[in-house]
Formats: sequence, structure tokens, C-alpha cells
Amino acid sequence: MEGTAKSLIEQTSESILNYIITNNLTTGDKLPNEYKLAEEVNVGRSTLREAVRALVSRNILEVRQGSGTYVSENTGIVDDPLGFSFVKDTLKLTEDLFEIRYLLEPRVAALAATNATDEQIEELDKIRLEIEERIGAFSDEHIEKDIEFHKLVSEMSGNVAMSNLVSIINQSISRYYDYYTSNRIKDETIVSHREIMDAIKSRDPILAEDVMRIHIVTNRRSLSQNKKNNLKKE
Amino acid sequence: MEGTAKSLIEQTSESILNYIITNNLTTGDKLPNEYKLAEEVNVGRSTLREAVRALVSRNILEVRQGSGTYVSENTGIVDDPLGFSFVKDTLKLTEDLFEIRYLLEPRVAALAATNATDEQIEELDKIRLEIEERIGAFSDEHIEKDIEFHKLVSEMSGNVAMSNLVSIINQSISRYYDYYTSNRIKDETIVSHREIMDAIKSRDPILAEDVMRIHIVTNRRSLSQNKKNNLKKE
Repeated sequence: MEGTAKSLIEQTSESILNYIITNNLTTGDKLPNEYKLAEEVNVGRSTLREAVRALVSRNILEVRQGSGTYVSENTGIVDDPLGFSFVKDTLKLTEDLFEIRYLLEPRVAALAATNATDEQIEELDKIRLEIEERIGAFSDEHIEKDIEFHKLVSEMSGNVAMSNLVSIINQSISRYYDYYTSNRIKDETIVSHREIMDAIKSRDPILAEDVMRIHIVTNRRSLSQNKKNNLKKE
Repeated sequence: MEGTAKSLIEQTSESILNYIITNNLTTGDKLPNEYKLAEEVNVGRSTLREAVRALVSRNILEVRQGSGTYVSENTGIVDDPLGFSFVKDTLKLTEDLFEIRYLLEPRVAALAATNATDEQIEELDKIRLEIEERIGAFSDEHIEKDIEFHKLVSEMSGNVAMSNLVSIINQSISRYYDYYTSNRIKDETIVSHREIMDAIKSRDPILAEDVMRIHIVTNRRSLSQNKKNNLKKE
């Protein structure tokens, strides 16, 4: 298959990336039109188009029809950035992802209790309430909000590398394994999220770390109990 | 810019991914030729070509000229999967990445001491020796080997999500910050890697965790001392 044009397109992708960075463009900003951008990065328009497509597939750019090309939300985070879709044993993958959550998120909660702004804490409380409402309405969409909750706690930590990472791990878990099935876990989610919220709000890092650890350990244990039950059935 | 063809190309990319997974293709395996693959995923050849290009830019496929299309090494891991190149303060990013190493790698070492195969331990010892040789020869390429060392320890842990993650974090650190400059840190690298190696070899998880923690904490402290020295100079 066509491999010849590859390196020119890659170079052009890099030039566009440099353009974004040197011009301080950020999430949601619009790029110049095709004609001007081709001039800026000094290539023909068909090469430019291919480079833009490559950046779209890496979720760095998005094309809004009739409007133009923009820097994506969640810039640069591709669908499956860590290649998890190539792991065949998704139950083992889920357990291993819980191990990573177990290692990262308690400290993240402690940092959040220390570093969060008051606005972030307010925003977190809104998300917490939405989760409770959706669980009350038996809506599966509470899982999305649950991922948002943990992502925001990670942002509140102040660690710039953490929020993308925690978000990706939680999204992967939700994609590969439905561990939210039992009502017991739904109740636990409500109680734990309240405790995490309260600990962060009262600026208590030790308590925040403890309650986040309990939350994750409880979910992890429920996963391993489900596994045992399924093995028994076989 | 052209947005119309996007969803068909994305669908085709997904069909190719499904083809790879259902046919149990793995790293280095060859895909059918263009004609046959287009038939398999039921699209025209020009759409197929674009989908292949998109997968090449995501590092899922690679095109070897005159030979064909293959599943990439490090399947699915793109260059900057977590979007770190969009963080402007690279010193802060490096500190934050060290925080993640600090949280993950001690436990990884403990798991490695428990789960590693004898072959992996032999391989790790080879890498350790190569690092020492390269440091002795003042070669900058020891950094690459250093990343390999930590990646292999992560593989030895048996956590399927860990080795990609640890590898990406270490690569990012080496890209954004040269923390290997001082001779003191080079000596420390040699001593620490020997200690980590010995602890894993003697199947001692507690010791492995301890020596890995010392290794990372020492590097992190050196980073923060460099920062203080640079601030004083300003």
C-alpha cells in the first residue's frame, strides 16, 4: 500500500502542531482556513488535507462542517491511547486497571483536598448530585458522570499529568467491564462520593486519601467476588 | 476542510481493527493485500487506503515499502498518547510525572519480585549491564536502556496495563527534562539498578519495593534541587 507520501504528511502534521503551540492556540480555537494554513506550513493543499486528517484521527483537530478546523476538546487524547484494545483478557485488564487506580487515586484525593479551588469544589458537588439523581432514575448514564467525578478530583490535585491518565483508566474500565451492576455497589458509590466530597471540602487530605482508598478497594473486592461467583457457575 | 468522508474512514478503521482482533493478528503480523483487505472490510480501495493511513498515524499499522502492511510494534501506542506536548510548563510536568512514578513503580517492583520468570530476570540483568557500560563510555544512549529497564520491570509485574504506562511516563520525562546530567545521579543509577535487580532475583518483594522507592525519591530530590539552584541563579 501507499507508503511514499507518509513522511511528508508526518512532517506536515508536526508543522501544524508547532503552529498550534507557537500561536498559543488551545482547546476550541479555530485554525486559519485551508489556503492560509497551507501557506503557513509551506505545503500544497492536498498534503495539508491529509495531515489534517491524520491529526483528526489522533483527536488533536476536529473539522466542523461549514465552519472550519478547530483544536479538539481533550486535545491529543486518542480513543485508546494505551493500546488496551489489544489485551484479550478484559477481566484481567480490568483488575490490573483497578490496581493502578488503587495506587494513584488515594493520593490524588489527598492532593485535591490541599489544592482545589472553591469553584472546583462547587463543581464537584454538582456532579455528585447529578450522579445521585441518575442512579435514582436507574439511568446508565451515571457512569459517564462517575468518570467525570474522578476526572475532576484529579484536576483538583494540581498534578498536570494526572487528570488525563485517571480519565483514560476509568473510561477503559467502564468500556471493558460492567462493575456497576449490583445495587450494593450503586449505594456504595453514593456514600463514598459524599465522603470524598466532604473530606475535600473540609480540606482534610488524610481523610480524603482514606475514603478514596475505601471506595476503590470496595469496588475492587466486588469485582473479585463477581469473578468467583462466575467461576462457580461454570 | 473536507469533513464528509470522516465517518466512513473511521468506520473502516474500526473494521480493520476488528479484523486484526478476530484473526488473532499480533505485533509484526502481515495484513492481507489491499485488494483482499478491501473485500474483507467491504469498502473501496481509496477508502481503505485512507483508513490504513489513519491507523498508521495512530501507530497501529505500519507500511513497509514493497512488502506490505503490518501490525506495528508497540501496537496502538501513539507518540504522545496522554497529550503531554500540550503542557507548557515542562518542569512542572516532569515533577508531576515523577509523582506518578513514585506512586506506581515501587509496587511494580514488588510484583515483579513475585511474578517474574527466570528468563525475564536474565534479560533484566543484561539490560542493567548495558546501562553500566554505556554510562562508563559516557554515552547518552544509556537513557534509552534505562527506560527499557523500567519497562521490563513493569512487564515482569504481570500487570498488563502497567508496562505501556510506565514506558510512556519514562519516555516523556526523558523528552522534557534532562535529569541525568550530574555524575552523582549516574552513580546512583548504577547502584539502584543493581539493588533492584538483586531484590527481584532473590524474590524479595518488600526489599524490591523499598529499593525502587529509594531510586525514584532520589531522582525526584535531585530534580527539585536542580530547580532550587536554577531559581537562585536567576
